Amino acid sequence: MARIVMKFGGTSVGDMDRIRNVAHRVRAEITAGHQVAVVVSAIAGVTNRLVAQCRQLARTQMPWFDGEYDVVVATGEQVTTGLLALALRDSGVPARSWQGWQIPIRTNEAHGKARIDSIDSAPLLAEMAEGSVPVVAGFQGIGPDGRMTTLGRGGSDTSAVALAAALAADRCDIYTDVDGVYTTDPRIVARARKLDRITYEEMLEMASLGAKVLQTRSVEMAMKHRVPLRVLSSFTDTPGTLVCDEDEIMEHHLLSGIAYSRDEAKITLTKVADRPGIAAAVFGPLADANVNVDMIVQNISEDGRTTDLTFTVTKADLERAVAVLRASRDFTFERLIPDSNVAKISVIGVGMRSHAGIAQTMFKALAERGINIAVISTSEIKISVLIAEEYTELALRALHSAYGLDAV
Amino acid sequence: MARIVMKFGGTSVGDMDRIRNVAHRVRAEITAGHQVAVVVSAIAGVTNRLVAQCRQLARTQMPWFDGEYDVVVATGEQVTTGLLALALRDSGVPARSWQGWQIPIRTNEAHGKARIDSIDSAPLLAEMAEGSVPVVAGFQGIGPDGRMTTLGRGGSDTSAVALAAALAADRCDIYTDVDGVYTTDPRIVARARKLDRITYEEMLEMASLGAKVLQTRSVEMAMKHRVPLRVLSSFTDTPGTLVCDEDEIMEHHLLSGIAYSRDEAKITLTKVADRPGIAAAVFGPLADANVNVDMIVQNISEDGRTTDLTFTVTKADLERAVAVLRASRDFTFERLIPDSNVAKISVIGVGMRSHAGIAQTMFKALAERGINIAVISTSEIKISVLIAEEYTELALRALHSAYGLDAV
Repeated sequence: MARIVMKFGGTSVGDMDRIRNVAHRVRAEITAGHQVAVVVSAIAGVTNRLVAQCRQLARTQMPWFDGEYDVVVATGEQVTTGLLALALRDSGVPARSWQGWQIPIRTNEAHGKARIDSIDSAPLLAEMAEGSVPVVAGFQGIGPDGRMTTLGRGGSDTSAVALAAALAADRCDIYTDVDGVYTTDPRIVARARKLDRITYEEMLEMASLGAKVLQTRSVEMAMKHRVPLRVLSSFTDTPGTLVCDEDEIMEHHLLSGIAYSRDEAKITLTKVADRPGIAAAVFGPLADANVNVDMIVQNISEDGRTTDLTFTVTKADLERAVAVLRASRDFTFERLIPDSNVAKISVIGVGMRSHAGIAQTMFKALAERGINIAVISTSEIKISVLIAEEYTELALRALHSAYGLDAV
Repeated sequence: MARIVMKFGGTSVGDMDRIRNVAHRVRAEITAGHQVAVVVSAIAGVTNRLVAQCRQLARTQMPWFDGEYDVVVATGEQVTTGLLALALRDSGVPARSWQGWQIPIRTNEAHGKARIDSIDSAPLLAEMAEGSVPVVAGFQGIGPDGRMTTLGRGGSDTSAVALAAALAADRCDIYTDVDGVYTTDPRIVARARKLDRITYEEMLEMASLGAKVLQTRSVEMAMKHRVPLRVLSSFTDTPGTLVCDEDEIMEHHLLSGIAYSRDEAKITLTKVADRPGIAAAVFGPLADANVNVDMIVQNISEDGRTTDLTFTVTKADLERAVAVLRASRDFTFERLIPDSNVAKISVIGVGMRSHAGIAQTMFKALAERGINIAVISTSEIKISVLIAEEYTELALRALHSAYGLDAV
């Protein structure tokens, strides 16, 4: 007997037939003798519709700073819990729905982007021990003031992992519309391979660097609590990808995957007067304005007294970042050059720690295709480069071959 | 300064523009110096869609005996509370949403048709005293086991009246898509008149006898707690109809209105052996099967030893009633004649208490049009007759004229 948390995303519960299909998958685990708790997302499309309605009525407010936004969008998951509980009972499996406030799933007070503080596992464990399936609303919780909160988009993955940790589950299965984690985006690289296993660290880099299969925060939490995570499709019967500890993976490839993101924008400041504290003077006001800066390069210019600064922000923040920089009086520069025509390509693998020459392979493969690298940043298990956006697909295919990741 | 409960039905909050319109109506009352609490229904059409989804998945269950049905359909009102709170803030009025479980609105455990036991008015009164508008989800509450309950279709009217009673409100305004209570259905009788005032007792008969403008239970509750009730349109600025105590109405018409219902069916049992206890033998099994019997007539037949019994049930119960009667071994009859081709027409008015000849006017007006009366039943302030369904419109128009109700 294992204790399993099964999480089903929006497309997996996309209509009544699919909800019935999900009920059959849950029944199969129950029939196999396991204890199961289920976490569900809203039916695909519902959350977007509810968010649009909020925006229409809250013209002068940012709805995510407002508890009412949470009240509206949390209904998406609530509907799915009730419907799936009905479908489970219909197929002979005892079940009941649980909303965030009922368990409770306690969060901080940050409406629209709350963090889970604690989950009371006792009522769910009691129900599971009786052979009934708790169907838990993902994405939602209850704040310190007793009002509903939501975790931010994609938060249902985080709900599932947090629940698996609270229940000390043997496994957390994330059912989605793809059948696992791939070496890169298979829509772009036809020879992308599905990974059988990937480490938490690699999955975390993949998620933060643009692979959208899992929410970053959910991977962080799985890593912290050592929850084995399985990513698999609710539409096929293939085994999916296991996200796990490094020592559970027998044979490592040099690289696990290649991620990309088109959400970046680049800003270059030329001839910034070079003096101690200049980085703080430039980046302090951006941090104050809630603009996240990612990659940073600083070059000493020819005259030796000024420097050129290049860094990236998200495309959504670009306009705000430019305004903040132009308004600042704490430093001088010659020109400010914004560029949103960029993409970030990242190669990721724990094998990097023990193998030299990985960066060299990357630079060579890109150079051979005439792709210019604007910015480079590295960490222990990844190398990211910024290139012109139109080279994204070409770069992905070139690197996928160069690192021997192509399916045979 | 008055304390007002404003309730808005499904068509009044039918889209985002209408929700904004509702916010403006609420703001007008706040600007006039009143304290306001709002009760809302689901956006028109939403509840039907959610009920249909429940039915699709709960094929082998009656969803209304199941808490999951409540979990799904309660989301309709929840969405409206959040959206209206956003719209109110957008128009400068402080507001927050309240779900049944948050206040709480405590009900009994009858999922899908719960009754309100108590409402904790303290948090709402505190909010109103600060000039903020509580926006309360109608139709829902929380049961003794901490699970969500719903009150049955149209239950938002009842939520509003119960809240008005709990808050000791000066008035409960029910905003809907008609501009008041009419002497009869204006879609059938073009000369129907809007009533300025109507007594609780008359409104109760109107509602139970087929006028759909208010839910019967909400009128009962308003009468019990003496909550002045106003029915008015959210789309026009006409004053609507006040439902109030008899002594607040200066001049009474003989009749207040004429109601009709096509939901009835008639059953006749011929030559039932007449003996003491026969009524119990016939109607006991029907009551046990949850079939409500309305009008009853018993005629002694020619032989003096048997009787013909005619009575009505709702059309929805007809099939079940026939099956129960045929299966019963406690009495004998010659023939069982079911007839669903009937309508019930009722004339209603507190003036009946003091005026003779009202029944006579009815019988004469129907006879002149060749309309046959199958069953008659009376109470202190109403007379109901059962006629063939195809005469419904003709009968309504004839009676409306005969009693001098036509608009001039």
